[in-house]
Amino acid sequence: MTEFTRTAGRAAHDMRPVRITRRYTMHAEGSVLIEFGNTKVLCTASVEEKVPGHKKGSGEGWVTAEYGMLPRATHTRSDREAARGKQSGRTQEIQRLIGRSMRAVFDLKKLGERTIHLDCDVLQADGGTRTASITGAFVAAQDAVDTLLAAGKLKASPITGSVAAISVGLLQGTPLLDLEYTEDSACDTDMNVVMTGAGHFVEVQGTAEGVAFSRAEMNALLELAEKGITELIALQQQALSN
Amino acid sequence: MTEFTRTAGRAAHDMRPVRITRRYTMHAEGSVLIEFGNTKVLCTASVEEKVPGHKKGSGEGWVTAEYGMLPRATHTRSDREAARGKQSGRTQEIQRLIGRSMRAVFDLKKLGERTIHLDCDVLQADGGTRTASITGAFVAAQDAVDTLLAAGKLKASPITGSVAAISVGLLQGTPLLDLEYTEDSACDTDMNVVMTGAGHFVEVQGTAEGVAFSRAEMNALLELAEKGITELIALQQQALSN
Amino acid sequence: MTEFTRTAGRAAHDMRPVRITRRYTMHAEGSVLIEFGNTKVLCTASVEEKVPGHKKGSGEGWVTAEYGMLPRATHTRSDREAARGKQSGRTQEIQRLIGRSMRAVFDLKKLGERTIHLDCDVLQADGGTRTASITGAFVAAQDAVDTLLAAGKLKASPITGSVAAISVGLLQGTPLLDLEYTEDSACDTDMNVVMTGAGHFVEVQGTAEGVAFSRAEMNALLELAEKGITELIALQQQALSN
Amino acid sequence: MTEFTRTAGRAAHDMRPVRITRRYTMHAEGSVLIEFGNTKVLCTASVEEKVPGHKKGSGEGWVTAEYGMLPRATHTRSDREAARGKQSGRTQEIQRLIGRSMRAVFDLKKLGERTIHLDCDVLQADGGTRTASITGAFVAAQDAVDTLLAAGKLKASPITGSVAAISVGLLQGTPLLDLEYTEDSACDTDMNVVMTGAGHFVEVQGTAEGVAFSRAEMNALLELAEKGITELIALQQQALSN
Amino acid sequence: MTEFTRTAGRAAHDMRPVRITRRYTMHAEGSVLIEFGNTKVLCTASVEEKVPGHKKGSGEGWVTAEYGMLPRATHTRSDREAARGKQSGRTQEIQRLIGRSMRAVFDLKKLGERTIHLDCDVLQADGGTRTASITGAFVAAQDAVDTLLAAGKLKASPITGSVAAISVGLLQGTPLLDLEYTEDSACDTDMNVVMTGAGHFVEVQGTAEGVAFSRAEMNALLELAEKGITELIALQQQALSN
Amino acid sequence: MTEFTRTAGRAAHDMRPVRITRRYTMHAEGSVLIEFGNTKVLCTASVEEKVPGHKKGSGEGWVTAEYGMLPRATHTRSDREAARGKQSGRTQEIQRLIGRSMRAVFDLKKLGERTIHLDCDVLQADGGTRTASITGAFVAAQDAVDTLLAAGKLKASPITGSVAAISVGLLQGTPLLDLEYTEDSACDTDMNVVMTGAGHFVEVQGTAEGVAFSRAEMNALLELAEKGITELIALQQQALSN
Repeated sequence: MTEFTRTAGRAAHDMRPVRITRRYTMHAEGSVLIEFGNTKVLCTASVEEKVPGHKKGSGEGWVTAEYGMLPRATHTRSDREAARGKQSGRTQEIQRLIGRSMRAVFDLKKLGERTIHLDCDVLQADGGTRTASITGAFVAAQDAVDTLLAAGKLKASPITGSVAAISVGLLQGTPLLDLEYTEDSACDTDMNVVMTGAGHFVEVQGTAEGVAFSRAEMNALLELAEKGITELIALQQQALSN
Repeated sequence: MTEFTRTAGRAAHDMRPVRITRRYTMHAEGSVLIEFGNTKVLCTASVEEKVPGHKKGSGEGWVTAEYGMLPRATHTRSDREAARGKQSGRTQEIQRLIGRSMRAVFDLKKLGERTIHLDCDVLQADGGTRTASITGAFVAAQDAVDTLLAAGKLKASPITGSVAAISVGLLQGTPLLDLEYTEDSACDTDMNVVMTGAGHFVEVQGTAEGVAFSRAEMNALLELAEKGITELIALQQQALSN
Repeated sequence: MTEFTRTAGRAAHDMRPVRITRRYTMHAEGSVLIEFGNTKVLCTASVEEKVPGHKKGSGEGWVTAEYGMLPRATHTRSDREAARGKQSGRTQEIQRLIGRSMRAVFDLKKLGERTIHLDCDVLQADGGTRTASITGAFVAAQDAVDTLLAAGKLKASPITGSVAAISVGLLQGTPLLDLEYTEDSACDTDMNVVMTGAGHFVEVQGTAEGVAFSRAEMNALLELAEKGITELIALQQQALSN
Repeated sequence: MTEFTRTAGRAAHDMRPVRITRRYTMHAEGSVLIEFGNTKVLCTASVEEKVPGHKKGSGEGWVTAEYGMLPRATHTRSDREAARGKQSGRTQEIQRLIGRSMRAVFDLKKLGERTIHLDCDVLQADGGTRTASITGAFVAAQDAVDTLLAAGKLKASPITGSVAAISVGLLQGTPLLDLEYTEDSACDTDMNVVMTGAGHFVEVQGTAEGVAFSRAEMNALLELAEKGITELIALQQQALSN
Repeated sequence: MTEFTRTAGRAAHDMRPVRITRRYTMHAEGSVLIEFGNTKVLCTASVEEKVPGHKKGSGEGWVTAEYGMLPRATHTRSDREAARGKQSGRTQEIQRLIGRSMRAVFDLKKLGERTIHLDCDVLQADGGTRTASITGAFVAAQDAVDTLLAAGKLKASPITGSVAAISVGLLQGTPLLDLEYTEDSACDTDMNVVMTGAGHFVEVQGTAEGVAFSRAEMNALLELAEKGITELIALQQQALSN
Repeated sequence: MTEFTRTAGRAAHDMRPVRITRRYTMHAEGSVLIEFGNTKVLCTASVEEKVPGHKKGSGEGWVTAEYGMLPRATHTRSDREAARGKQSGRTQEIQRLIGRSMRAVFDLKKLGERTIHLDCDVLQADGGTRTASITGAFVAAQDAVDTLLAAGKLKASPITGSVAAISVGLLQGTPLLDLEYTEDSACDTDMNVVMTGAGHFVEVQGTAEGVAFSRAEMNALLELAEKGITELIALQQQALSN
């Protein structure tokens, strides 16, 4: 196993500096800029007083997410999905993941027949956009719920816990926390983990892009992910308490 | 924890009867009908003597997959994706998963500048269509490679191992192997695991649809998955040796 | 005129072996695998308890069809229509033909405000997929109607007769019944004929792909078609009486 | 059988007045306004000095057609297909029919590697738009070929004969020639016939929209169609000789 | 500044001959063929007794426009937008302009909850298709309103004035009225002006395609446009009084 | 004419505070956040070393623009265009305007066979998004050109001048500079003006949304626009000199 040096002297188990800026834009009920190092995602939560067809008349609400990247969020410009006329499979995969992660901490009955739309738009990408999206979307969702509570539209919060996400990977056999873009490309295995504040798993998605990984390696990755998520949950709480 | 009875007296750690029928249709280089109980998927492998743009001139080949369900493969008829004019996010997610799983056991250099298209079409669905697709697609891919070898178009096999997939889930706390549709709907956690014949993970995708899951539960699920995949790998080899 | 030999010693006026397998898949109200030699089409009939816009409030039902080919049903793989994002003109032409043929033997008033969807999916193609689809779809539709009668949802059958279809063609001046793919490609004229059990025409679609055809040739083709359809109607009845 | 009176005292075997106006618009190599009574179709033939993919390098040319209706060509306004984002099945069916009919009288080898595009746009509809389109498109195609001959781009005409089309139908048992819109809607059977100047069939498409039709009825319809097409061929020649 | 000669001896401030033919097709409530020299646009006005979503229940009506070009209206054939599956940005820009121009002279309250659809289809293009469309659409709209008044569906006209449009441009420093295609291509500046009969501006859209233009040049162009529109308004009134 | 008060004590001829932040994101060759009061647009310039089809082999480059709004940039959430599968007419109109405005100050020959893509994405909208986009895009384009010059890929700048844009409007007869959203909605006339640093017009687009406007009113609006653009050009130069 060769020596590997991470940017800015990060250790293998270190996250990048994380910044959470609330009220980043003015119209949305929740609006959060989240930064994982150079990755910057704007997460807005919008409340709509109606639900999609499959929830009509159920007394339950809905929480859903959409994801996008500005064309030049990345090293080389990618086509604008609106211009191409469809969202890529990757985009759909990510927005479905964000939506499921949010619903894991929502009591849809308590939300009532309304929808919370989470829009996660990547302004600048350097790896980890989906995990930053989930982590930031939770804060935006909390702000939107607080707005509804303050307006008397909700009596009690439908949020049942907190949720955050982090990526981990195996690079030349070493487990790394919070992959940057260059690390992500170089990794043999890339895993995205979504956990609740209570320490339980909501999603685990591990993919061997090169060599397949062993059970022992998987365990090491999950431990690293738990460490990162514990830190993120703390940062979310701190941001929400300002 | 309440008593739970599976169809046809299956124990929690039992797979459904699996049947693999090769040469199911006559035109494709590989054509496999795979059945996991009532789930029936037709997997064909088609060889095309060219590669997509991102591989042109690279000397490497490509392995890719598409997935579809006949409109009445399911309990109630779903819209035909061709008529709606787009593939759902779920479809795209599944076909990307099948493609990555196949590429995990392919040496694209050895394949040369050609493409193997794996088409997985669900004739009848009862849970586990994506895991049946992966398991069947591998057999179809092997047949296609053998056709190329027999025709002298390949000198050595580009296949580096075998690959299969199974679903596992937590139902009222009990880990179950190979979920049927009704079990899948009832489960709190649903996990799809893709492994190589050498016992390493290619993909692990666990989703808490209800209550989030603990590390211990995850371990139990992974062990069950390993058991199932070992059986599937044996069935693949047996089918290929006929 | 040169000697011409058909596969498996078929005479010019012989159909290929036809097999009709009912209850081929388990969810649909009617599910029929029909085989005309190597051509295999899965025809399902699905009942939906509502009607499209143009029939709402009319007291009448609707019968409609969709057609598709698995990508590798053919000699070389064709693009998946769902992936391309639209159905070809050929597909639309065929599914409109199947729908009209079925409605020719349905009393939509007696059906009541419900829809029968016929899905004809070609698993393997060797010529005659549209005629096999119509012939099989009728059996599936009959099964669906019988299900509705048995469930007491219908008091009397809305089916007013039977319907089947066959292709005929002129190859080097010789009229041939039930064209295989290679014959279809070689023919100067290709005609698809849909008839009722009572011996009347529902659709006649003749196309000169090479030399235009005379009135005498047309008459010879129609006679051959009548012969074939008489046989198909008998086979349908036999299958339905099992 | 009740007495039936046609508009303007037409007998059952009479066509509507037909007018063919060449050079109707100025840019196209062939531009013909054809009128069958109140049905008015603008048919243009455009020459393009390249061929579609499936003809590249073959030394052969291609002849193809597109069909459209202005939104208010009909009694009530229909949606603009360009705005809806797709052509209907009916549109595709018709344009495929026009294309095949034209190719029936073209020697694609003699055309050389170029394409003739026939655009048939219905300015006003009163039944018979597809038959008027075919009849007018032939004249436009002839003009385009004459332009190529005059320019020395072609040495010999690739046109091997003339072609025209007419509709016939059974209304309350009476065979009618050249159906107007109200007759078309009332007919039990509607048949479109495309024939060459030499009196041979290119296409016969008969559809029972109500009661299925007998062999005798079919014969009566074909005879009527032959009469109409003979008249149309004469009118085409007359128009082209001006 | 070089000498410049316009077609048919037109002076710089001359319009092309304008012809307005009402009742050009028979089904629409208003149907006008308008010709600006060789530019020919068919403008139909269709009344629909319902309004789009954003006007439902408002008591107000809606006036909207769609624009299209026949594929061979131009020098070289352009793709059919219906076949390509979407309208170009240019088409959308033009139809939005026509719609706004019409609404500028409509009192939507007085129209009541109905929609007037204006379809402007270019049969032959030689520059100025959007200005001819607006000028002709107004006449068609007036005819449609008169139909509604005559039928007693409207008590008073919702039309509050007349509206027409013209293009002007700067060619080598000389302001030209009513640009033909070749002039339009050669111009440095191209301006479309929409004015009411009362002499006020509804739209002014000036674009420097080459050298940017000065305030003085703009003034010269606006004066020329006023002259042209005064003539067009007179021609509209004359056509409507026939 | 009633007294009208603007936000934050703005006089009728005052612009909102404008801020131009260069190097806002890290990947693009030019990346500018421009703010007109609460309107915030991220403008990136991306260089691609190839040109679209219509410029291939011409020796000339191309400059083009795309425009988008984040779903919750506005008061109420709008649908994501990528999810709807098409860009609205408004979006296309705006991006065509930005593209033309940029090309007005580019010598495409000097640019060489490469493309500059300008992406203008609205993070927060409060009126004037298209004028902010143009003003910001120019700065981003300048930065991209400077990058090419510094890298030796260009010998001389292809930029021939500067360009900026502002909106003006008539509210109850008073001309206002730089409209906020609430003003824009209330205005009778809304005009967007694009000018070069040399004081010439590139685009003038005036629209009467309520009452049509007179020549005198137009003159007043143009004067106000000139004042605003002079200020914007100075701010651009100041930003570029940092």
